[in-house]
Amino acid sequence: MSYRPGIAQLAQELASGQTTSAGLIEQALTLAEDPNDQGARVFIRVYDDAAREAARSSDRLRQHGIVPSPLAGIPISVKDLFDISGETTLAGSAVLMDAPPAERDAIAIGRLRAAGAVIIGRTNMTEFAFSGLGLNPHYGTPGNPVDPTLIPGGSSSGAGVSVANGMAVVGIGTDTGGSVRIPAALCGTVGFKPTASRIPRDGVLPLSPTLDSVGPLGPDVASCAIVDAIMAGEPPDVPDLIPLDGLRLAIPLRYVLDDLDQPVITAFQYALQRLKAAGARLSEIPFFELEELPSIFAIGTFAAAEGYAWHRRLLRSCEDLYDPRVAVRLRAGAELSAGDYLDLSSARRDLMRRALRVTRGFDALIMPTVPQVAPALADLETDDAAYWAANSLFLRNPGVANFLDRCALTIPCHEPGTLPVGLTIMGEHGSDRRMLGIGLAIEQALGYRAGAPSVAGAEF
Amino acid sequence: MSYRPGIAQLAQELASGQTTSAGLIEQALTLAEDPNDQGARVFIRVYDDAAREAARSSDRLRQHGIVPSPLAGIPISVKDLFDISGETTLAGSAVLMDAPPAERDAIAIGRLRAAGAVIIGRTNMTEFAFSGLGLNPHYGTPGNPVDPTLIPGGSSSGAGVSVANGMAVVGIGTDTGGSVRIPAALCGTVGFKPTASRIPRDGVLPLSPTLDSVGPLGPDVASCAIVDAIMAGEPPDVPDLIPLDGLRLAIPLRYVLDDLDQPVITAFQYALQRLKAAGARLSEIPFFELEELPSIFAIGTFAAAEGYAWHRRLLRSCEDLYDPRVAVRLRAGAELSAGDYLDLSSARRDLMRRALRVTRGFDALIMPTVPQVAPALADLETDDAAYWAANSLFLRNPGVANFLDRCALTIPCHEPGTLPVGLTIMGEHGSDRRMLGIGLAIEQALGYRAGAPSVAGAEF
Repeated sequence: MSYRPGIAQLAQELASGQTTSAGLIEQALTLAEDPNDQGARVFIRVYDDAAREAARSSDRLRQHGIVPSPLAGIPISVKDLFDISGETTLAGSAVLMDAPPAERDAIAIGRLRAAGAVIIGRTNMTEFAFSGLGLNPHYGTPGNPVDPTLIPGGSSSGAGVSVANGMAVVGIGTDTGGSVRIPAALCGTVGFKPTASRIPRDGVLPLSPTLDSVGPLGPDVASCAIVDAIMAGEPPDVPDLIPLDGLRLAIPLRYVLDDLDQPVITAFQYALQRLKAAGARLSEIPFFELEELPSIFAIGTFAAAEGYAWHRRLLRSCEDLYDPRVAVRLRAGAELSAGDYLDLSSARRDLMRRALRVTRGFDALIMPTVPQVAPALADLETDDAAYWAANSLFLRNPGVANFLDRCALTIPCHEPGTLPVGLTIMGEHGSDRRMLGIGLAIEQALGYRAGAPSVAGAEF
Repeated sequence: MSYRPGIAQLAQELASGQTTSAGLIEQALTLAEDPNDQGARVFIRVYDDAAREAARSSDRLRQHGIVPSPLAGIPISVKDLFDISGETTLAGSAVLMDAPPAERDAIAIGRLRAAGAVIIGRTNMTEFAFSGLGLNPHYGTPGNPVDPTLIPGGSSSGAGVSVANGMAVVGIGTDTGGSVRIPAALCGTVGFKPTASRIPRDGVLPLSPTLDSVGPLGPDVASCAIVDAIMAGEPPDVPDLIPLDGLRLAIPLRYVLDDLDQPVITAFQYALQRLKAAGARLSEIPFFELEELPSIFAIGTFAAAEGYAWHRRLLRSCEDLYDPRVAVRLRAGAELSAGDYLDLSSARRDLMRRALRVTRGFDALIMPTVPQVAPALADLETDDAAYWAANSLFLRNPGVANFLDRCALTIPCHEPGTLPVGLTIMGEHGSDRRMLGIGLAIEQALGYRAGAPSVAGAEF
């Protein structure tokens, strides 16, 4: 299996007649429905007929010169958290099975459809998006694309595997504390968490309205940039590449470099060398402020407080239908008083303000997306302590961008033939397109293209 | 005592040399320090020397053609909730007596100073701004300008009396649920609560950051409009009068017309007649949505939740120094969970959205500012049940504008010789200048000028 083509290449192939949307969709559906692949656990629902019809329409319209965007005719997957008109949004749960179908598409989904995207299916996820590992007791856990005995990362688990395994060109995910970037890092794809307010959350089942962000996972930075622009209601362009030469990149020495495993250390060091060789000016900064996060989270978290507010009636009536590991995290939100919540909000504003002073002199921050490569699924399924430890560890780094209301991009930085590792580029609030422009340069410097499961990938 | 001149008239008299700032300040200080008047209870601190010096400077600068705004050289009072550089902000409390002095002026105060306003003193208020009646056990309760045995209304009690009794031309207050408009209505002045985000709250001791608004009390709409513009950082202009002919004014029949007393009914009916005679098109609308407010407030209130978050450490260490009636309301905030707070926030957003549909077809809503005229102070001082009942009753109508994040203006509409009654004009979020333009026309139609205490006023 070679690297996955991105939107730009596919758009060109579609334009030149080398391929058709019908062909792309058939290829994606074949993989999604292959009993030897992860499809059955990647998708909660596959829209085979509707996708085929949309592809045929796209091909016919193209023959008449109607091509609404570079995404036209290209298969995408959508996390089970987004409303799709006429469908019930389950959010990877069993408890919402009798909920009424959505009356309209989520705004982001409507924009993707208007741009001509073809929706292959709804992807599996951690129930209610409330964990970074991707385990789901109701619909099964999709295996890591490199080794299916390892976790895929979450909560947008199906999104990550669908992209890495070619069941969709781009996966639409959400990210409240890392839920786009963790599966992207562990599956070896690019993933982008925009500034939370950039893409409307209307029609997306909330976990934490304060932190929830909508973002794409894709085979390359350009594909994520196109989909980000479409979902933000902007022209579907790739930003100009921002050359690395002279760019000031800061590496926070505290907090985000703790507990790295050897594969992550190796890949991160390799990445730093490549960036330096490309002319980037790397600075190690203490960023003491990040060390305050554990004591702030000791007050409580937005996800628990806001998640509990949404779920409490449902928990009261049918907690037994929840994933117990999700229910217990939601229940923790019941402990927060309004005063705690307001203290948490104040602490956040204060930290955002002080963090800005630390990072203002740099073009971006870089760090490992998550501190370790994907652990074994079986260990986490059976051992609660291991599950909670891994969950905290994997959410730690990506959660910084959500808490500081910033944007962050993860790009694979491991050597082919090793387990996937992601390099994060984090920018200030609202610097989304600039981070994507820098990301294009970093991707080039790293010389990596995603979608090549290279460890034992062929056997499964 | 005749009506109080507004800023426009005083600016003209200053420009023509008919009067001087020194003269105006001396006149205000004389009233403020008159042992037969309310000054000792109106002001927590009088800045006599500084005010005299500022007045002399203003007069000298004027002789050199330096007149920063129509407010230059004119005496204003400032509620004890605003930071003034070098002074301790007490917020009408005893508990903050040892707090450090403010390092800089509140932004709104800085803008007023830059416009040339002369600050006469800090006005008394309900402790921490947490009641609509204006009683203060630490510094005394200023008597109503018409009859000092009656309450002044609050929380900006001193602001209202300072304006009505000529101790300041304009009083700067704050309004979280009616704290500008209640004393304005009960004291017979104009009062304006802008949309909360219009005037920066920086340097203002918070009660509820969600609802807190900074606003002026003054002798006429034009004075309030000038001061509003200055505090909002805009040119110090009076907006164009918006003629009443053909204007669509809606009267909500539910909630805000309950429990009116006879003086309010009489004054409100008189106002409606005058507006109709001036060509306004009056519509009675049900506005059922307002009847949902009591059940929403049963969850809890923003003031209690956010006030408690601010006060809880202080309450723990020295609750005995608080006004017990304020402490008990703050303590109620401890009962709110984060989930309750988030439910309250959702309920607010939902009500705002639905209320907009009801009111969208109208230029403004009109209603009595408060349902009854000022009650006797002694009854409320001694009787807790009477106090709580009156407090809820007087906050009910004005609180609507805070909860719906709108702006509202109160204009006296009683007949001279009767107890003051306010007519409220409420507009949509952000329609501040438009409401003031409509207010100019309504004021003209009502034919009233404030500041004439006409019942037994001379005796005191």
